[in-house]
Amino acid sequence: MRTRIYNARILTMEEKRPVFKGEIYIDGGKIFRIKEAKTEKSERTEKPALNEEEKWDEEIDAEGNLIMPGFKNAHTHSAMTFLRSYADDMKLQEWLFDKVFPAEAKLTSDDVYHLTKLAILEYLTSGITAAFDMYKLKQDSAKAAEELGFRMVFCGDINDFGGTLEEMEQDYFRYQCEETPLLSYQFGFHAEYTTSRNLMEGIAQLAGKYKKPVYVHCSETKREVEECREKTGMTPIAYMDSLGLFENGGGLFHGVHLDEADFDIMKKKKICVVTNPASNLKLASGIAPVKTYLEKGIPVAIGTDGPASNNCLDMFKEMFLVTGLQKVVHNDPEAVPAADVLKMATVNGAYAMGLDNCDILAEGKYADLIMIDLMQPNMQPIQNIEKNVVYSASKLNVKMTMINGRAVYQNGKFKIGESVEDIYENANRIAERILDGKE
Amino acid sequence: MRTRIYNARILTMEEKRPVFKGEIYIDGGKIFRIKEAKTEKSERTEKPALNEEEKWDEEIDAEGNLIMPGFKNAHTHSAMTFLRSYADDMKLQEWLFDKVFPAEAKLTSDDVYHLTKLAILEYLTSGITAAFDMYKLKQDSAKAAEELGFRMVFCGDINDFGGTLEEMEQDYFRYQCEETPLLSYQFGFHAEYTTSRNLMEGIAQLAGKYKKPVYVHCSETKREVEECREKTGMTPIAYMDSLGLFENGGGLFHGVHLDEADFDIMKKKKICVVTNPASNLKLASGIAPVKTYLEKGIPVAIGTDGPASNNCLDMFKEMFLVTGLQKVVHNDPEAVPAADVLKMATVNGAYAMGLDNCDILAEGKYADLIMIDLMQPNMQPIQNIEKNVVYSASKLNVKMTMINGRAVYQNGKFKIGESVEDIYENANRIAERILDGKE
Repeated sequence: MRTRIYNARILTMEEKRPVFKGEIYIDGGKIFRIKEAKTEKSERTEKPALNEEEKWDEEIDAEGNLIMPGFKNAHTHSAMTFLRSYADDMKLQEWLFDKVFPAEAKLTSDDVYHLTKLAILEYLTSGITAAFDMYKLKQDSAKAAEELGFRMVFCGDINDFGGTLEEMEQDYFRYQCEETPLLSYQFGFHAEYTTSRNLMEGIAQLAGKYKKPVYVHCSETKREVEECREKTGMTPIAYMDSLGLFENGGGLFHGVHLDEADFDIMKKKKICVVTNPASNLKLASGIAPVKTYLEKGIPVAIGTDGPASNNCLDMFKEMFLVTGLQKVVHNDPEAVPAADVLKMATVNGAYAMGLDNCDILAEGKYADLIMIDLMQPNMQPIQNIEKNVVYSASKLNVKMTMINGRAVYQNGKFKIGESVEDIYENANRIAERILDGKE
Repeated sequence: MRTRIYNARILTMEEKRPVFKGEIYIDGGKIFRIKEAKTEKSERTEKPALNEEEKWDEEIDAEGNLIMPGFKNAHTHSAMTFLRSYADDMKLQEWLFDKVFPAEAKLTSDDVYHLTKLAILEYLTSGITAAFDMYKLKQDSAKAAEELGFRMVFCGDINDFGGTLEEMEQDYFRYQCEETPLLSYQFGFHAEYTTSRNLMEGIAQLAGKYKKPVYVHCSETKREVEECREKTGMTPIAYMDSLGLFENGGGLFHGVHLDEADFDIMKKKKICVVTNPASNLKLASGIAPVKTYLEKGIPVAIGTDGPASNNCLDMFKEMFLVTGLQKVVHNDPEAVPAADVLKMATVNGAYAMGLDNCDILAEGKYADLIMIDLMQPNMQPIQNIEKNVVYSASKLNVKMTMINGRAVYQNGKFKIGESVEDIYENANRIAERILDGKE
């Protein structure tokens, strides 16, 4: 399918390339040309003359709105949608052990399939075109993602309570090595505090065998760091590094409580971090040292975390928090400017997820892109579009979410070939069954 | 005009009344009846049989969505829309003195009229039905609000650089005492650090004459508090109180940096606070002690502050910040639960603004209400609607904003009887003239 997007303002997210007016041409899910408009002042509504050589299956008039790479949600647990607003305003331990774990134990394969679909709908409304998903029953999430046309990178989630190294290797082959255009895989495990030394050493070996990075929840809470120190004499990062887990790089989810030596390890071992500010606030985990990461040249990506702890899956909320929290913590309104945040939410997310094929808008890249509605009051007057996106935009500004060249969300409608109401109904049925004991 | 809203879930925001299913009847801009549905399980789409006695000019099918009081934006500077994204990521002093003040000096009466309209459009998209607006040239904002059907409470803004006590008294009569159904007025001034002792004493006298509360920016930054201490030996709150400003109560905008005695004064003098978390983060002012206010029984309302410092006018962003920041600062995920936040954004805002005629949904109250779209992925499954609104909702969930019985924003369209594009165009023209020196 050949698609032409015209009348657009374009932000490719290439280094230092400002917004320009132009067109984007897509074929077979990939961008094959980006054309800059000759005159700066092109009329917003005028449809440029067609090049007669070009035949298009679809032409999209961007009406002067912004086209940019889709957001990458670099840490989430999609199927946890059924726990949204179920156990809020609670202490972490009580939340996790009394509420979340018992409820998750009741999840079936079919549940994960339906609940992941609900999360994907929400990603689309927020301009998120890919998610780095850590959850059990990946084959069911995979089915949901493929059916809805959503890009999913699976992260290994094994720990002492579930999963084996053999399954991990199988998942790696299934999603990373075989031809699954929308799916890919990264090695990973739940956390140091839920995983035995033996198992971690096995993961290190496996990642070493394929020369791949390892991803893990790390240094999310003070308590986690303290307990690891008591047990091993080391911080979680130092301890996991001592087991050889990061020989091919990796990534930390959360990364809130670090000491100076931790930063050095991250820098040396090419470990990136995925920050989850809304979840860290809501569970009172702390505020990640994002400014320090940037100063040290450690790549920062952004995740929503799962809907049980956030409770929504909204990159706009996360983007404002990433910069706002650093400004107030460092008493410095210059901290983490908007352009850095936008890079985190797109390019760095793609880097963390191994998605170098859809990080920016350029020839040969997958057409994973969004249209941001500038004709809304919160984006007016149009002065600095990038700042507007970070500081002012909301889900209401997402006019289109396109993945692999396919507009799966447009003008408030899902174009997924199935009923949204059915997805809602299934999620409610599952929540009632598991949480209220109804069937 | 008689309007019927049916098939609704209703949250009246009366104390301890949970969400119920029912209908709301409106006549002449006021609610005259709220009817609870007899059966709990009413079909979402079925239109209940009409009572033959009732004749309606308009019938709105809520389709099972939530009807609740509109949000009250209890502190803003609406006309500052032209400065959105103009001077971000800057130190406060530089921002204010090099950027904001010189730009504001160029504003004409006509500019304020157009720029306020832009802000009002944004309020409507966020379900905000009334704003407590502090800005110069009130007659122009008043014209904008009345033309768009928006409820505006003006706050006195005088200081050493503009405004007189005579004008203040005139404004009080014009907006508070005369028949202006959408407009009202509260005494107020800019801040202790911009206003001479003489002028503050005059304001205290004026407020005393009419037995009215006084509103003021206060204790927003550490520096402000330190400088007042150096000058007067007192905190700003204690100093202003010593001048008799709060003899009939009042309200503080921001209220970030307080000591124990300040809380006592507030409690004793019935002073409320309007918190502005997004602005306080972005300008690195600090995090207001909201949990302490609640513990001491001091009413907290929520404001967006102006678009120059926020940069958007979005109550959903503010609501999440109010609770999220308290949770992380106090290392307590139970701090400031969702129900408290919802009260701040509605009932407490109305209290701070003197709007006891549209604080809750009840017979005799103005029909200032909003419809929250629950048939969006971020509100599913439907478990705890109030928590969903605070933790998950966004502007995309605002299906209708009704003020005085008139739906001025519905299904993404403004129903204001004038062109939205013209409002955008005017704002851009003004911004270009003032900020880029173009005409």
